[in-house]
Amino acid sequence: MSYAILAASLRSAMQRRDQEAIERLIADMQPADLAEFVQHEHTDTVLSLLQHLPLDQRAVAFGYLSEALQEEIALRLSVTKLAELLLHMSADERTDLFKQLDEDRQQALLHAMPRAEQEDLRKLSSYEEGTAGAIMTSDYVAIPAYYDVTRALATLRATGTHAETVYQLYCIDTDGRLLGTVSLRELILAEPDSQVAELMTEEVVFVTADTAQEEVARLVARYDLLALPVINGGERLVGIVTYDDAMDVAEEEATEDMHKGMSIGKLEGGLRSASLFDLYRKRVVWLVLLVFANIFSGAGIAYFEETIEAYIALVFFLPLLVDSGGNAGSQAATLMVRGMATGDVRTRDWTRLLGREVLVAVGLGLTMALAVSVVGIFRAGTEIAMVVAMSMVLIVIVGSLIGMILPFVLNRLGWDPATASAPLVTSIADASGVLIYFAIATAVLGLPV
Amino acid sequence: MSYAILAASLRSAMQRRDQEAIERLIADMQPADLAEFVQHEHTDTVLSLLQHLPLDQRAVAFGYLSEALQEEIALRLSVTKLAELLLHMSADERTDLFKQLDEDRQQALLHAMPRAEQEDLRKLSSYEEGTAGAIMTSDYVAIPAYYDVTRALATLRATGTHAETVYQLYCIDTDGRLLGTVSLRELILAEPDSQVAELMTEEVVFVTADTAQEEVARLVARYDLLALPVINGGERLVGIVTYDDAMDVAEEEATEDMHKGMSIGKLEGGLRSASLFDLYRKRVVWLVLLVFANIFSGAGIAYFEETIEAYIALVFFLPLLVDSGGNAGSQAATLMVRGMATGDVRTRDWTRLLGREVLVAVGLGLTMALAVSVVGIFRAGTEIAMVVAMSMVLIVIVGSLIGMILPFVLNRLGWDPATASAPLVTSIADASGVLIYFAIATAVLGLPV
Repeated sequence: MSYAILAASLRSAMQRRDQEAIERLIADMQPADLAEFVQHEHTDTVLSLLQHLPLDQRAVAFGYLSEALQEEIALRLSVTKLAELLLHMSADERTDLFKQLDEDRQQALLHAMPRAEQEDLRKLSSYEEGTAGAIMTSDYVAIPAYYDVTRALATLRATGTHAETVYQLYCIDTDGRLLGTVSLRELILAEPDSQVAELMTEEVVFVTADTAQEEVARLVARYDLLALPVINGGERLVGIVTYDDAMDVAEEEATEDMHKGMSIGKLEGGLRSASLFDLYRKRVVWLVLLVFANIFSGAGIAYFEETIEAYIALVFFLPLLVDSGGNAGSQAATLMVRGMATGDVRTRDWTRLLGREVLVAVGLGLTMALAVSVVGIFRAGTEIAMVVAMSMVLIVIVGSLIGMILPFVLNRLGWDPATASAPLVTSIADASGVLIYFAIATAVLGLPV
Repeated sequence: MSYAILAASLRSAMQRRDQEAIERLIADMQPADLAEFVQHEHTDTVLSLLQHLPLDQRAVAFGYLSEALQEEIALRLSVTKLAELLLHMSADERTDLFKQLDEDRQQALLHAMPRAEQEDLRKLSSYEEGTAGAIMTSDYVAIPAYYDVTRALATLRATGTHAETVYQLYCIDTDGRLLGTVSLRELILAEPDSQVAELMTEEVVFVTADTAQEEVARLVARYDLLALPVINGGERLVGIVTYDDAMDVAEEEATEDMHKGMSIGKLEGGLRSASLFDLYRKRVVWLVLLVFANIFSGAGIAYFEETIEAYIALVFFLPLLVDSGGNAGSQAATLMVRGMATGDVRTRDWTRLLGREVLVAVGLGLTMALAVSVVGIFRAGTEIAMVVAMSMVLIVIVGSLIGMILPFVLNRLGWDPATASAPLVTSIADASGVLIYFAIATAVLGLPV
């Protein structure tokens, strides 16, 4: 059954207070769907619905809830109940929730847990947000490389129940250093008495715990990995990042880059769940800054006031010319920023790409000049049409170059190139456009006497 | 060793013509890295480098090359050689390449292949681009549900070597209908004589072959799937889409949406490999259309020419006001479009989100009015400052609403909401801004006598 049908049936069962139907429907639902269903319910309802699931499935569904709702529920549960739930969650989700709690509750929780999980939680929660360490899990299967296949499979059966993936096994030496990986597929297909060391792949893609999470997502996608091992300074294996967490990071990054591209700060939760004040705050800063950036355009106009008063028809073409530069610039910036984010564009390609962009921009400028000069002749005569056409070519080239160069400059300065947002590029291109247009107009038409 | 070091060593080995070193380095490289390395080499060099790899690894590396380069190489190989390579590629990549070849070569290739692969290739290549059918693979392991664990594992060993994933097994009835799934983890951890039918999960997330690929990517991410089964009309299992292909689709979609958001058409290949003409073509259409859209702003200005001539100081604030509406609108549109793409925003949330947006926009408008009125008083006196402030509030609200409503309207019309690009929203908001500003100015300041 699809989510919509299950959700409707569940809602009606809840209204009828039909406990049996509720239980059956909840058992039929995917954990992710159940999480979406309860997301906007009252906390009491969420608690009572989750109660219908066995503990391990409850922990999975709980892991899909928004951070805010998880925290709310965590505050309502007794320390014992919460510890029980946490112990059934995956190590990475457990850590995320743990980090949101206050010091007192964290201490109480740690005391309610077995020693090994305490240690693990302390270690995992110590990594900085945004790094591989913060998104990795310690639920992986490591086997000594000198094992044979039978023994490796036995270890997997004994320790694999809680592992996030049993499909990739990590081969370590006696000091816990990562030597290679072997897939469950290879183990299953191999002779039972082969040595793991012979089967394993030694060319392993790995990261250190302080690697940026964007880089982790990029590597998982590039090499089509199921999981990416994370090592510490001493080459000891400390965790893995699974592909599903990497996908979440990639999606989050794409959303963040798109928002940055429109000068929107990082939102907690999506558009639907973000608070009104958060939405306001994440948009207003840039909007106000851009108001001041646009004063340069105004100043440009004021400088040429005499020309404008003499040839008031020029103002008709102002929005059209100025916007064209901004649009061409935003296109160039978007292509660049996205190319850099996906790894398609590297800094060493810069000069070649700049050269290509100039050629494309000349083509774009000429085409648009042609389009606008038709309007120009019809509306304001040949002389002004000529001014407008010349301005268009130059404005589009300058705008494109600004859009192309800004992300690179920001990157060089150590900033996120995505901050080279369309509105910023537009504002800079606008001011240049005003200057170019009226400078050409004044030169061609002459200053009024 | 990192990619950069391996690539540098390989390049120097190639200059020294040190065959032994070349062979060793190539063997050490990840297939994705080798593909990137050879991507811009001459076709002959690519062929000779790939030759160093055993056939199965060669096929994997070949699968990572760009479509254009794959096609070029395919045209250089004899039909026998090409068929041999294709047979070692995964079924989905094989199909992608096959579809690029001309009819004659397709026929010749089919004849050079075993019957089963012929059938498979014919079937897979018949699905429309952009659907689940076009990205799925037929390399999966299906087992009858009445098998026990021992027999299931034996089947897996016998047929699993070429499967894209052996970690998710698909349980079918005698007609090939999908009954459920069982993971290799469950099989390994279960008693050898348990029935597959007892172990399998019957609540399976699946799609039909004509499901849009964006939906496939969304489901794989939402349910953290390793692979998503694809069925035909008769509920028969026809293929699976693996998580790595879903990740590629998600990345491609995010890039496309970002480009659409800046009015750039769909590029084949990235910014780096797209042809100059393609870059020009995908950008010029919208740019020229937007020139004409901006004529409305020009017309608005022309309509109020008398007011402008009387109060030339108004022109100073024009770019700033008009851009603010466009910026607020682009922000709203981006939040909306991205929210719809990730599934965070659904059509039923519309009225609630619209209400929230109005509140946020009022807040934004008031803040920006405050900022601009300081500039206004300093620059042009209280009266004009008041006009500018009033206009700002209204322009920001109207701009935000346009950005909010346009994606929904497009969606209703069956268009991609991502077409509600920032430049389009900006152009519409600009024209409204011009009208609002000068209408308020004329009303407050009075027409010149």
